[in-house]
Amino acid sequence: MDDELRTDRSSLRRKRDRGLHDRASVNAILDAALIGHVGFATSDGPVVLPTVVARLDDVVYLHGAAGNHMLRTLARGVPACVTVTLVDGVVLARSAFHHSINYRSVVLFGVAERVTDPGEQRRAMDAVVDQVAPGRSADARPPTIEELRATLIVRLPIVEGSAKVRNGGPVEEPADLALPIWGGHVPVGMVTGSPVGDDHVAPGTDPPVYPYRFEPSE
Amino acid sequence: MDDELRTDRSSLRRKRDRGLHDRASVNAILDAALIGHVGFATSDGPVVLPTVVARLDDVVYLHGAAGNHMLRTLARGVPACVTVTLVDGVVLARSAFHHSINYRSVVLFGVAERVTDPGEQRRAMDAVVDQVAPGRSADARPPTIEELRATLIVRLPIVEGSAKVRNGGPVEEPADLALPIWGGHVPVGMVTGSPVGDDHVAPGTDPPVYPYRFEPSE
Repeated sequence: MDDELRTDRSSLRRKRDRGLHDRASVNAILDAALIGHVGFATSDGPVVLPTVVARLDDVVYLHGAAGNHMLRTLARGVPACVTVTLVDGVVLARSAFHHSINYRSVVLFGVAERVTDPGEQRRAMDAVVDQVAPGRSADARPPTIEELRATLIVRLPIVEGSAKVRNGGPVEEPADLALPIWGGHVPVGMVTGSPVGDDHVAPGTDPPVYPYRFEPSE
Repeated sequence: MDDELRTDRSSLRRKRDRGLHDRASVNAILDAALIGHVGFATSDGPVVLPTVVARLDDVVYLHGAAGNHMLRTLARGVPACVTVTLVDGVVLARSAFHHSINYRSVVLFGVAERVTDPGEQRRAMDAVVDQVAPGRSADARPPTIEELRATLIVRLPIVEGSAKVRNGGPVEEPADLALPIWGGHVPVGMVTGSPVGDDHVAPGTDPPVYPYRFEPSE
């Protein structure tokens, strides 16, 4: 594995064996997630907000209304941290101490910039829509010039960051293994339910089926 | 609804109708989530990391190894932001512009402090284990004195924050409603799979069934 995205601050401080700094590992986690959490400093202290994080090549895009405070702050060029986490399971150890969560996470560091090129704006909007539902951008009405003007899109280049993965069962104290307590892990995942059409769906129109980034429920 | 947790910085800047500042709404979302994302400033810029967020009364507890950088930083009394987000659905509008996510989120602001009282440490550890699997703390071996010493627990009082909820179908431009495009939302939720015992489970021991904070898969 290469270490392309490793820097001092993106190196894991503990449990370094769970850390990855190659682009492929980072991209795979970004692509599997619906949302991420964006952190930035303000005069009132740090703020962390959830938002759709859409990757295209070596960039992630964030978008929102033109007046959005987070995006306006990021577009001014303040340092940002974008973190994406997928929960994969709960880890039930015999000891309370060794309980844990299985997960895949990515932490990206950098400075975002506003996207002003109309072509890139459209590609970014498509990426955001396809992050929500892969393939949906081809079915939906594309944004108008006015809608693009009402949208603030920022790009964060993927140049510095790390991925971290925990999986499998508990790590126990040897003496605990003989306790009459069940130990193991319980997988956790996201599923979709049945589509709910709104009041304006024409009779006989079936809901589209998109290959969502998580398993469909049966 | 009361506004007990509202302050200038915890007031929603936009879509204020989606914001809630009462303790009951905030607590319900905190209790339904497995993890949250914690933001804090460092000399290298903002950092956002995922962790289990366990609520007990009017406090959330975060915990980890005694050497954990995030917890050591928080324990020094730096301003923190703890954000918890549950994704409830994807919203497919007829226009790309109006695509959205249904979610419930909580943003808490404040300054954390280290928990040093052994009784509170034990209650906090129980709360963390029960956040992972409700009821599990009664089944697991409790922490030893040495394990408590090896754990850093911080408490963040729930005094300032907001909840935000989006649900239902798309908000569309009226002219788009007649387009031959399906519009609506697709529920999304977390489910658990079948428990996976480790190699040390005694033969004939059934996995315990806990009332997880999300639906079991069928």
